[in-house]
Amino acid sequence: MPDRFSFALHATDGKARTGLISTPRGDIRTPAFMPVGTAATVKAMMPESVAATGADILLGNTYHLMLRPGAERIDRLGGLHRFMNWSGPILTDSGGFQVMSLSDLRKLTEAGVTFRSHVDGSRHELSPERSMEIQKLLGSDIVMCFDECPALPAEEKVVANSMRLSMRWAERSKAAFGDRPGHALFGIQQGGVTQDLRAESAEKLKEIGFDGYAIGGLAVGEGQEAMFGVLDYAPDMLPEDRPRYLMGVGKPDDIVGAVKRGVDMMDCVLPTRSGRTGQAWTRRGPVALKNARHADDPRPLDEDCTCPACRNYSRAYLHHVFRSGEMISAMLLTWHNLHYYQDLMANIRAAITAGQFDAFEAEFHAMRAEGDIERL
Amino acid sequence: MPDRFSFALHATDGKARTGLISTPRGDIRTPAFMPVGTAATVKAMMPESVAATGADILLGNTYHLMLRPGAERIDRLGGLHRFMNWSGPILTDSGGFQVMSLSDLRKLTEAGVTFRSHVDGSRHELSPERSMEIQKLLGSDIVMCFDECPALPAEEKVVANSMRLSMRWAERSKAAFGDRPGHALFGIQQGGVTQDLRAESAEKLKEIGFDGYAIGGLAVGEGQEAMFGVLDYAPDMLPEDRPRYLMGVGKPDDIVGAVKRGVDMMDCVLPTRSGRTGQAWTRRGPVALKNARHADDPRPLDEDCTCPACRNYSRAYLHHVFRSGEMISAMLLTWHNLHYYQDLMANIRAAITAGQFDAFEAEFHAMRAEGDIERL
Repeated sequence: MPDRFSFALHATDGKARTGLISTPRGDIRTPAFMPVGTAATVKAMMPESVAATGADILLGNTYHLMLRPGAERIDRLGGLHRFMNWSGPILTDSGGFQVMSLSDLRKLTEAGVTFRSHVDGSRHELSPERSMEIQKLLGSDIVMCFDECPALPAEEKVVANSMRLSMRWAERSKAAFGDRPGHALFGIQQGGVTQDLRAESAEKLKEIGFDGYAIGGLAVGEGQEAMFGVLDYAPDMLPEDRPRYLMGVGKPDDIVGAVKRGVDMMDCVLPTRSGRTGQAWTRRGPVALKNARHADDPRPLDEDCTCPACRNYSRAYLHHVFRSGEMISAMLLTWHNLHYYQDLMANIRAAITAGQFDAFEAEFHAMRAEGDIERL
Repeated sequence: MPDRFSFALHATDGKARTGLISTPRGDIRTPAFMPVGTAATVKAMMPESVAATGADILLGNTYHLMLRPGAERIDRLGGLHRFMNWSGPILTDSGGFQVMSLSDLRKLTEAGVTFRSHVDGSRHELSPERSMEIQKLLGSDIVMCFDECPALPAEEKVVANSMRLSMRWAERSKAAFGDRPGHALFGIQQGGVTQDLRAESAEKLKEIGFDGYAIGGLAVGEGQEAMFGVLDYAPDMLPEDRPRYLMGVGKPDDIVGAVKRGVDMMDCVLPTRSGRTGQAWTRRGPVALKNARHADDPRPLDEDCTCPACRNYSRAYLHHVFRSGEMISAMLLTWHNLHYYQDLMANIRAAITAGQFDAFEAEFHAMRAEGDIERL
């Protein structure tokens, strides 16, 4: 294992890139999709099953973990990896985004944010310094700068002020992070859907200097077209030799479109959340298992998929256990969805390596356009 | 694999017995504990994980499966084994007990029971003939006679009439079951806590002739002392060369006491249900993971247990995920509880084989009397 964080680009095809992030805890093949393990668990999955889907890295949520069970407690217990039984790399967000979306009575100042916990109403604060401290206590391998992210649409002036606050916080995050060999700190570009603001943010981040660069403030309600509009230029503003992480994305077609525009890393709750609501993601698009059309269907969800849900069970079974409210429904569908997402990433990486990304993309959309298999 | 159902006794120690039931779908080591897979799933478990705990056989519930997804549907889909991805033996109950405890507007006659589904209010009927048909459609390896079971305490006259109805139904069950090589039909002794009625029931069942004999009508609220009182004589009334199955039992100390009195098979929802309410069963008795004393405890639930919950996680983690309502709490604790139950059965079998059952029983109770490990 290397003792430092590093990134190597192996191939490009158009703007699409494939490479390898090396960390002391293991390698991350890029483009990478990171399953979300909010509260120290990828919901409905054993961690060894998450690894079996092909995931190289998990995402943990600072906001949730600081409230329950608490960062100092996780540190005393040996860190997040040991606590949740995941030995590979972990990226933690800064808490900034979820404070804004989940907490009560929050108050934002230049110093940071004070808020009340959505779990028990207790009073907390987050700042660049405290966020760095928490992420260090958790033992995060890839630490995110503390930032602020306005919901879109928002007035340009609001977006600009927010972005500049985030850049001042990025500087404080870098100072507070210090020198931690083997651990990486990523800056987060903000600026909404305004190109000049995105450019200003990128310049500021490069001036500070980070191990990787995230594109923040997207996937917050602006729609795929607006997001791709930003991704047409935003990744190019970031250093070519560092990983580019698009936060909170996304649907399978969002992922393909983001990779095409130069993104290396992504995360999203969609495959896990969908797994708990009876929705499967497949090569042929989404499939709602609760639909009565599956009740007598002996066929697997996807005959070419090698996950346990597809190898060992019929659509009829998946329909039955979803309708019956059985936990195995979430367990099997989450496993399938994460497996599908990791398969998608593996196919993307192979296509870029082979210089066949356009053909891959065409086939990806053609297969989805066909839709689910015919009803029996 | 044998093509017939058979039972061989390997050793006895006092009244305690150990042996092997052979079926075309696999062997069942006795004394055996059967995890309950009510609705075609052992709740919160993958079937391969259930097998990994050491379970040789599962129990399925006729009442639940006939209502959802339906016995004819399961038959069309290739039977219950294929449907739920369990290749080992399955025992199904007759539906009689759960019709009485779960359904609405039931009406009992000599012919059978009509009732409304607790799921959707639809109208159904069960009789000895329909129960045999359903259990055949499911593909059950061990089929139970359709019986009626009054809640205790009940007047002796009520118990006697109910028992005699069950014996007439046992005769009809046997006739309807027919000749199905490789499949077994078990009779069910009734008679409440009245020795004469138990004797009368046993005589009637032996006269009809079954592949195995269950002791029914216990674990229905009478308490351990009354249950052991019946078990002091009831197993002796049943043929020595056939398996004896105590239905719906129980807590670990119920199991040890039942085996001591000559019982070979048991089933209970306790280990799985407890797993979903944060309760673990250990050598040292029950442990409530929701208790705040575990919040900072880095130690495993049981340092000598080899299940994933004990090998890979701290009590602090198990506490955290239970408090956070995460599915992995039920997944890990159910796994642990089933593992503990199967370990208990393995230790019981080894003790009987070695002629050391009394020493085992003393050690079992001594360890439980010590209680959980000291708080840190």
